[in-house]
Amino acid sequence: MQIAITGGCGFLGHRLARALLADPRVERLVLADVAPARPFPEDARVALLRADLSQAGMAESVAEGADVIFHLAAVLSGQAEADFDLGMSVNVDATRRLLEAARAGGRRPRFVFASSLAVFGPPLPPVITDDTAVHPHSSYGAGKAVGELLVADYSRRGYVDGRVVRLPTICVRPGRPNAAASSFVSGIIREPLHGESAVCPAGPDLELWLSSPRAAIRNLEHAASLSGEALGPNRIINLPGITVTVAEIVASLGRVAGPEVAARVVFREDPVARRIVSSWPARFDVKRALELGFSQDREFEALIREFLEDEAAEKAGRAS
Amino acid sequence: MQIAITGGCGFLGHRLARALLADPRVERLVLADVAPARPFPEDARVALLRADLSQAGMAESVAEGADVIFHLAAVLSGQAEADFDLGMSVNVDATRRLLEAARAGGRRPRFVFASSLAVFGPPLPPVITDDTAVHPHSSYGAGKAVGELLVADYSRRGYVDGRVVRLPTICVRPGRPNAAASSFVSGIIREPLHGESAVCPAGPDLELWLSSPRAAIRNLEHAASLSGEALGPNRIINLPGITVTVAEIVASLGRVAGPEVAARVVFREDPVARRIVSSWPARFDVKRALELGFSQDREFEALIREFLEDEAAEKAGRAS
Repeated sequence: MQIAITGGCGFLGHRLARALLADPRVERLVLADVAPARPFPEDARVALLRADLSQAGMAESVAEGADVIFHLAAVLSGQAEADFDLGMSVNVDATRRLLEAARAGGRRPRFVFASSLAVFGPPLPPVITDDTAVHPHSSYGAGKAVGELLVADYSRRGYVDGRVVRLPTICVRPGRPNAAASSFVSGIIREPLHGESAVCPAGPDLELWLSSPRAAIRNLEHAASLSGEALGPNRIINLPGITVTVAEIVASLGRVAGPEVAARVVFREDPVARRIVSSWPARFDVKRALELGFSQDREFEALIREFLEDEAAEKAGRAS
Repeated sequence: MQIAITGGCGFLGHRLARALLADPRVERLVLADVAPARPFPEDARVALLRADLSQAGMAESVAEGADVIFHLAAVLSGQAEADFDLGMSVNVDATRRLLEAARAGGRRPRFVFASSLAVFGPPLPPVITDDTAVHPHSSYGAGKAVGELLVADYSRRGYVDGRVVRLPTICVRPGRPNAAASSFVSGIIREPLHGESAVCPAGPDLELWLSSPRAAIRNLEHAASLSGEALGPNRIINLPGITVTVAEIVASLGRVAGPEVAARVVFREDPVARRIVSSWPARFDVKRALELGFSQDREFEALIREFLEDEAAEKAGRAS
């Protein structure tokens, strides 16, 4: 089995790659990224492809021979709002180009598209269901919503075997802040744990819809493994998450790491980030996803503990 | 005021152009079409532009100097299903190109995008509202849904002042059958009135959501004339229509033109056309559209009578 991951050197792509390599049926794993910088354990099955999908021929190189394509590459919410053209070029045009490349091979690959809760926006119903109209309030959300429609129609036509998963905000992301408007959601946990202060641009009452990296990776793998029959004609899935407020995040951090750590979170309003993030829904009915076997985190504190475990394991791995 | 209409030589484009020219404030009217074949009364304000929007520079020529752009050009439902690439190229790529051209001028033109009830599909709620998720079951519907998202985001960003109107199936269209899967809806009235038999590919119980050409033209004009403040942030409007069954259409035809005319409708199943058309909704809550001042037909028989009047007027016009 040959698998390709766009954004394969990003945080989720890299974690997904590690998980996929545990499966001996994977014969070749192509990690395509504009910046394949992340170190990777040596595995003869891995091929790094420095690919800007907006350049001629790159989508074809990614799709060639692939049985499964995970399309994770995207210009994130903050950046797509700051640079409209770049966002459209990657989030819309490159997705269309990759679908064309996947179709051209005639292999009808499974095509897992990472969409986002950002396709939704006000006026929001109390709970998002499978029947809720998308109404993006960011160019990132608009681009993802376009991608969803394309994947769905290419699937209906039999050109790819598509699966669209709408990811919650991922928390806790390791590393440094990124270009997502939701970057602070991880930052207000990660930075205080590292002894640094962190700015929260939204108020304590803001509700968020979160997924751990572990659940997100399990769910991306699960999306690829489900049969088309199990999925049926509707290929768009609201993934499970948990609803927490910023206040609950800070309180959980205090319980796990101590009040002096939680005190490193500084509230300072940022109208742009706040506007984008507060346009996203925090409550979903994910009955269908659970029936299809997707995973759900149990409680928020576990997300902090898992982050600490993963960080310790990574340090141990580097030291060995 | 300068106005451009893509698909300006199609049936709706031509009627819209005639209506717009009655307004002396219109200084220039660009009618762009791949086949500008329809005869047009001489009016020094009209410029015909033979434009394939997928060719370089064409979108720019259409948008140049325009205060209002009506984007009606599309590959219709039957044809987009038969030729996926053509449908995507026109309905998705050319719409994006035209939006870019409209943005490039920096004039923030009003951009009226003709969308369609075909963005919806099963599973359908009993009544479509503004909050119903699109779920296209045709490549035409998928392309229109993508166009809607693009117009909405270009508007949110302030690049165009967009208005998306989801048109019901237009009935009665004059002329010959076209490439829309719904072409028969007009055909089973028009052809019998002309003494010919007409095939109905769907059963008598099929419900349809219809608009007269007159209401559609009024509503396109109204969409352009509304202020951005009146519309608010949600730029997508389900236009009013009326719900009728095929059986009611045939019965109305009998009442208006006599039972021998209605007897010219022949029922013969066509699985492709039936599948597409029966995936479309027939019942909408159009409260918002009515509050915004959009027009609604009163009853179905009037659509047949208006068709006969328009045909008589056109013959008289040609004879004079």
